[in-house]
Amino acid sequence: MLDPTSPIPLYYQISTAILDQILEGKWRAGELLPPESQLAAEYQVSRATIRRALARLQRDGWVSTRKGKGSMVAKPKIEQDLMRFYSLARSFGKTTQRVYSKTLRQEETSANSIIAKHLGVRTKEPIVVIERLRHVDKEPIMLETSYLPSVLYPGLANAENVEALYDLMETGYGIHIARAEEFLQAVKPSSREASYLGIAKEAPVFLVERISFDLQDQAMEFRRSVIRGDRFRYKVELRQN
Amino acid sequence: MLDPTSPIPLYYQISTAILDQILEGKWRAGELLPPESQLAAEYQVSRATIRRALARLQRDGWVSTRKGKGSMVAKPKIEQDLMRFYSLARSFGKTTQRVYSKTLRQEETSANSIIAKHLGVRTKEPIVVIERLRHVDKEPIMLETSYLPSVLYPGLANAENVEALYDLMETGYGIHIARAEEFLQAVKPSSREASYLGIAKEAPVFLVERISFDLQDQAMEFRRSVIRGDRFRYKVELRQN
Repeated sequence: MLDPTSPIPLYYQISTAILDQILEGKWRAGELLPPESQLAAEYQVSRATIRRALARLQRDGWVSTRKGKGSMVAKPKIEQDLMRFYSLARSFGKTTQRVYSKTLRQEETSANSIIAKHLGVRTKEPIVVIERLRHVDKEPIMLETSYLPSVLYPGLANAENVEALYDLMETGYGIHIARAEEFLQAVKPSSREASYLGIAKEAPVFLVERISFDLQDQAMEFRRSVIRGDRFRYKVELRQN
Repeated sequence: MLDPTSPIPLYYQISTAILDQILEGKWRAGELLPPESQLAAEYQVSRATIRRALARLQRDGWVSTRKGKGSMVAKPKIEQDLMRFYSLARSFGKTTQRVYSKTLRQEETSANSIIAKHLGVRTKEPIVVIERLRHVDKEPIMLETSYLPSVLYPGLANAENVEALYDLMETGYGIHIARAEEFLQAVKPSSREASYLGIAKEAPVFLVERISFDLQDQAMEFRRSVIRGDRFRYKVELRQN
């Protein structure tokens, strides 16, 4: 099964062999792989070599390893089309995945210089902050903070139904988003963000900053989303023009 | 300057005050901020509070802190438009930033199951692998590995000018890329990737996987790019349809 004469290292050959079995559906998502000792016996290599093979699979997102529990086949990442800029609720509305949003913060405050710049308002101008922890299938996936100029959204600081914020902007305030500018970064979470998302402090996350504009090209919302890297990937379809 | 009666913590007020000065251009990119002791005296707070303020600015990418050297204003991240799917060389051709590519690997090998799936070929079929370390302004920014079916690219394993691979595909092989599917993930680098990119092992990176198709919708290249999170951000322009 393995080729010891190949220039490809054994751990790499083993990781490829295990991956082939995952792709063929030998184990389902969430199912435990055989223990290291058993894999070591099966491939006739040391446990260190098995661990290296599993580390590669873990890094590439195929297995997740928990101390004392062993390695299991990872759940596939949630995939979102980057070009559909609408709400999480809408993009998952048609799938079997259940979306749930918990509001952590909803209040009036004043714009700091960064937020003021993004919203095109003056520093210290009143804004509404809405922070939501969004779950997919009961798992916390993203922490989203929206900043909106208070003058455009009377009563929003005390409104209900902020879970579906784009819907509320449309139905409650007659605001139609025509376009958005989005900036994607790969960063580490703050300890607070890591704690809400249930991930390690060193776990990579997407930081997505979005400014949404209405038909008159006025900034209507600045949104800062911290999204779990281990559970989420973006898909983009690119076309030559 | 600070408001001790505000519900906003002092470290946060300080970080906002320092950020305002950065935005106003008080210090240039690469320039050192005053030492912690001086900032602590200036704001009349403890050094621990200053460190927390700087940690926030570091996390948000405004300053970079090096042990023993202090905190300096960070260089702005390289921004790339996600919708322009052409080469790094082309996207930077019109700017003042100098792009340089070093080929680390260029050889024929055989497709593993993942690569075979992406390229629509059979496992073990011969493919050409080209790995390039790409620099912007002398700094290593991305490690790109391209996988191409050998049958479509005779002689590519020994070709010159693989630094501008899309150009070579067009001019050398008459291949025109019509569309691409791209998947973005936020991950940690492998130790080898971290070492080539000159970053810490825990530093978050973008992992971008791209399959490029020609006019007949045949897969022509699978490309895996590992891109420094501390130096790169994507911009996306979204429009309602």
